[in-house]
Amino acid sequence: MRQLEERIIADGKMLPGGVLKVGSFLNHCIDTKLLGDMAAEIASLYKDAGVTKILTIEASGIAIAAAAGMALGVPAVFAKKHRTTNVEGSVYMTIIHSFTHNEDYHVIVQRDCLDASDKILIIDDFLANGSALRGLIDLVTQSGAEVAGVAVCVEKCFQPGGDEFRAKGIRVDALASIESMTDDGQITFRS
Amino acid sequence: MRQLEERIIADGKMLPGGVLKVGSFLNHCIDTKLLGDMAAEIASLYKDAGVTKILTIEASGIAIAAAAGMALGVPAVFAKKHRTTNVEGSVYMTIIHSFTHNEDYHVIVQRDCLDASDKILIIDDFLANGSALRGLIDLVTQSGAEVAGVAVCVEKCFQPGGDEFRAKGIRVDALASIESMTDDGQITFRS
Repeated sequence: MRQLEERIIADGKMLPGGVLKVGSFLNHCIDTKLLGDMAAEIASLYKDAGVTKILTIEASGIAIAAAAGMALGVPAVFAKKHRTTNVEGSVYMTIIHSFTHNEDYHVIVQRDCLDASDKILIIDDFLANGSALRGLIDLVTQSGAEVAGVAVCVEKCFQPGGDEFRAKGIRVDALASIESMTDDGQITFRS
Repeated sequence: MRQLEERIIADGKMLPGGVLKVGSFLNHCIDTKLLGDMAAEIASLYKDAGVTKILTIEASGIAIAAAAGMALGVPAVFAKKHRTTNVEGSVYMTIIHSFTHNEDYHVIVQRDCLDASDKILIIDDFLANGSALRGLIDLVTQSGAEVAGVAVCVEKCFQPGGDEFRAKGIRVDALASIESMTDDGQITFRS
């Protein structure tokens, strides 16, 4: 999606170590015009995929998941970070490793939010190591529902998450696919 | 907003102590048709208020803030919960008390997300004690921007937050205003 690539070049902040900050338009201050355009693009990609529900994880996936849900006309569920392993039987739970904070945390979804008959589109703002999305796929699997695909705003193709999912036969779509980033701020997109 | 009131009666779960669970349609599994209608209602209420930006707090305010931002054509900023008091000078920070977890937490917004010339509409899913919204108003005040108003999906009028803000001259709008809730699940809306 050229509009997003151009915005990343214009307003993204590249830091050493492959870190890309997009808080000024994507996941802190949200450009809602761009958000609507990204949601329309995701809806266009998945309009014939039989999606019944969207699943994301708090917090930075919520805006694009909700917007895509509006565009596709389906509900959007967000998995919640949970403080303890002590949960009721009414939830699905998985463990996600945060590379940012170097720790594991528990993530839950209420069982009545996911149904075995659902076809779930998993959405997030970023796909890099794939840790968060692996956890979301685990939650969908626990519910007996099907994964229709994974759609993200930005994939860092030089990190292994996306290719790991594709190798398992999971459909993965990224609105901007970053092939490489250099420490001095040069960015190359996969065409 | 009658549609939201009817949904609360149909699908809300009332628990003893004035607790209302709306996770099945508002803040865990999000009915995105209702979300769009709520956003349109907020946009209608504030269309002549000169709003330049929306501010909310992660996580459950993000969906309605992003949707209202799309409807009003302005950016939506979400304040982030922060682990430590150790922040860079590039952020505004405030402290919010969580009644749910009975603890204080730090909340930040990058300084370049708010400008002294901004007129900010503060949005959240719930208004009860007003603790989160008080923190968001503090962040706006620190930036020198103006508060255009506070819009929430659900106000619990039997808790003091909304009236505290109104007494200070702040405009407060709720799409559903709950006058009272009984422990046996009877709910009365303010007309």
